[in-house]
Amino acid sequence: MNDTDIEQMDPQNFLYGCELKAGKEVVFNPSDDDFQHQLSLRMVCVDPSTKDELHIVEVEGRDKDGETVKAVLATLKPSTLPSVSLGGFEITPPAVFRLKSGSGPVHISGQHLVLMDGDQSFDEDDDD
Amino acid sequence: MNDTDIEQMDPQNFLYGCELKAGKEVVFNPSDDDFQHQLSLRMVCVDPSTKDELHIVEVEGRDKDGETVKAVLATLKPSTLPSVSLGGFEITPPAVFRLKSGSGPVHISGQHLVLMDGDQSFDEDDDD
Amino acid sequence: MNDTDIEQMDPQNFLYGCELKAGKEVVFNPSDDDFQHQLSLRMVCVDPSTKDELHIVEVEGRDKDGETVKAVLATLKPSTLPSVSLGGFEITPPAVFRLKSGSGPVHISGQHLVLMDGDQSFDEDDDD
Amino acid sequence: MNDTDIEQMDPQNFLYGCELKAGKEVVFNPSDDDFQHQLSLRMVCVDPSTKDELHIVEVEGRDKDGETVKAVLATLKPSTLPSVSLGGFEITPPAVFRLKSGSGPVHISGQHLVLMDGDQSFDEDDDD
Amino acid sequence: MNDTDIEQMDPQNFLYGCELKAGKEVVFNPSDDDFQHQLSLRMVCVDPSTKDELHIVEVEGRDKDGETVKAVLATLKPSTLPSVSLGGFEITPPAVFRLKSGSGPVHISGQHLVLMDGDQSFDEDDDD
Repeated sequence: MNDTDIEQMDPQNFLYGCELKAGKEVVFNPSDDDFQHQLSLRMVCVDPSTKDELHIVEVEGRDKDGETVKAVLATLKPSTLPSVSLGGFEITPPAVFRLKSGSGPVHISGQHLVLMDGDQSFDEDDDD
Repeated sequence: MNDTDIEQMDPQNFLYGCELKAGKEVVFNPSDDDFQHQLSLRMVCVDPSTKDELHIVEVEGRDKDGETVKAVLATLKPSTLPSVSLGGFEITPPAVFRLKSGSGPVHISGQHLVLMDGDQSFDEDDDD
Repeated sequence: MNDTDIEQMDPQNFLYGCELKAGKEVVFNPSDDDFQHQLSLRMVCVDPSTKDELHIVEVEGRDKDGETVKAVLATLKPSTLPSVSLGGFEITPPAVFRLKSGSGPVHISGQHLVLMDGDQSFDEDDDD
Repeated sequence: MNDTDIEQMDPQNFLYGCELKAGKEVVFNPSDDDFQHQLSLRMVCVDPSTKDELHIVEVEGRDKDGETVKAVLATLKPSTLPSVSLGGFEITPPAVFRLKSGSGPVHISGQHLVLMDGDQSFDEDDDD
Repeated sequence: MNDTDIEQMDPQNFLYGCELKAGKEVVFNPSDDDFQHQLSLRMVCVDPSTKDELHIVEVEGRDKDGETVKAVLATLKPSTLPSVSLGGFEITPPAVFRLKSGSGPVHISGQHLVLMDGDQSFDEDDDD
C-alpha cells in the first residue's frame, strides 16, 4: 500500500469555492448522514471589485466541548496582500464563514473531501 | 512500509505547467482510462510582460453532486504580489483554468500525479 | 486502510482561535488526562483596530530537556503583511502565546487535534 | 509503525541549494543507478546583490508522455517579494533550473531525498 | 492504526527557536547517540530592532556525498517581508544557521522532532 500524494485520489476530492460579502454568511454543513465531510481550505483572495480596506475573514466552528468558537482565517487588503494561502486548514462541519470586517467580495477556495464508505467508522481502530 | 516523502516517488510524479491569458482557457482532463490523474498545484506567478493590474485565476471543477463549481485560485498583481504558493491544492480532473480578470500572462505550476497501476481501484479498501 | 487527507477526520479536529493583546497571554494546556492534545497552527492575522507597528508573536513551550524555550511565531505589520500562514506549526502543550512587541490585537487560528482513545499510548509501537 | 514527521528521517534527507544567474543553468540529474532521487523544493530567495527587477525562475522537467515541459517556479522582485515558499514542490529528475527573466542571483533551496535501498522497487506493490 | 495529524504526537515534538545576529552562528547538532533528531523549520521572522535592510539566512548542512553544502533559507526585509513561512523545511543534523547578509536579529522557529526508541533503526524495512 502506498502512502503518497496519489492516494489523495482515494477519498473523493471535490472543488470548493464560496464568495463572502458584508452581511452574507456562507454555511458549510453537508446533510448526507452516511458520508463524512471535511474542508481543506487553500486560498483566500480578493476581487477587482473589492474596496481597498482591510478584510477580516472569520470562521465559526466548534471547540472540543461542542461550544461555538470563532477564529480569524485571514486578513487581506487588495493593495497590500490580495491573496493568502491557508495551506490546507482543515475544517470539520458545521462551519460558518463571514466577513468580520470589510465589505467584500472575498473568495475562499479549497478541497471538499468526502468519505464515501458509510460503513467505515472513524471512531474505531483502523486495524480492526 | 515507509510513510515518507520519498514515497512520493512511487506514484509517477510529472511536472505540470500552463500559461493563462485573457480568453485562453486551459483544460486539464487526461484521457487515459486506465490511469488515475490528479494535479497538486504549487505556484501561480506573473510574468515580466504582465500588466500591473489585479489578475484573478479561476478554476472550474466539480462539486460532490457532479455540478460545475468555480473557485478562485489566486489574486495577483505584479507590483504587489508577483507569486503566490498554493501549497499543494489538489485538483481532480476534469478542470478548467482561466483568468476571470486581467489580461495575463499568468503561469500555473505544480505536480501531475499519475497512478500507473490500472488494476488497483481506489474505490475498494486498500487492505483487500 | 487509507492514508489520506480524509483520515484527518479520524482524530477529532476542532477549531482553535485566540486573540492576543499587549499584556494578555493565552495559555494552551488542556486538562483532560485521558486525551492527547496538539495544536496545528495555521494563521496569524491582524485586525482593523491593530496599530500600524511591527507585532511579534511569541510562543513559549518546552524543549527536549523539558526546559522552557521561546520562539517567534510571526512578525506582522498591518500595512506590510496583515496575515501570515504558519502552514501547520505543531505545538504540543503546555504552551503560552503572547505579544513580545506591539499592542495588538493579533489573532491566531488553527486546528485543535484530540486523540480520544485514552487506551492507546503513543509511547508504544503502533504495531503492538 | 509510525506515520509521522519523524519518519521523514527514514529516507535519507540531504540539504539542497543552488544559485541561478542569467545564462547559468543548474541541472539536477543524480547518476546513481541504484538509488532513487527526488527534490522537495522549499524556498526561492533573492540576494542583496540582485538587481531590483522581476526574476522568473523556470524549471524544465518531463510530462507524463516523456516530453520536455517548462513551468514557472517563482516570480520574485527584491523590493516587492524577496522570498517565496514553494511548500515542498516535488521534482523528479532530470530537471533543469534557469532564470527565464532577470539577471540574478536567485537562490533555490530544499531537500534532496534519496531512497538508499536499491532492492526495493517503487514499481511494485509495497505489500509484496 | 491512524495516519493522521494526531500521530504527530507520537514522535516527541518539541519547540525549537533560535536568534541569529551578524557573527553569531547557531549550531544544531544534538549529541544523544540513541535518539534520532530532525528539525522541521516553520518560520523566519525579523524583530522590531532589526535594521531595515535585506537579511539573508543561510543554512549549512550535508549533501548526499557527505560534503558541506550551503543553502539560503530566507531573504527578509522588515519593511517588505517581515515574516516568511518555510512550510516544514526538514533539516537533518548537523546543521549551522547564520546570517549571510544583514546584522539581525532574525528569529528561526520550528519543531524539533525526536525519535525516542533507540532500538528502531530507520535503515531497516519498517515491516520487519
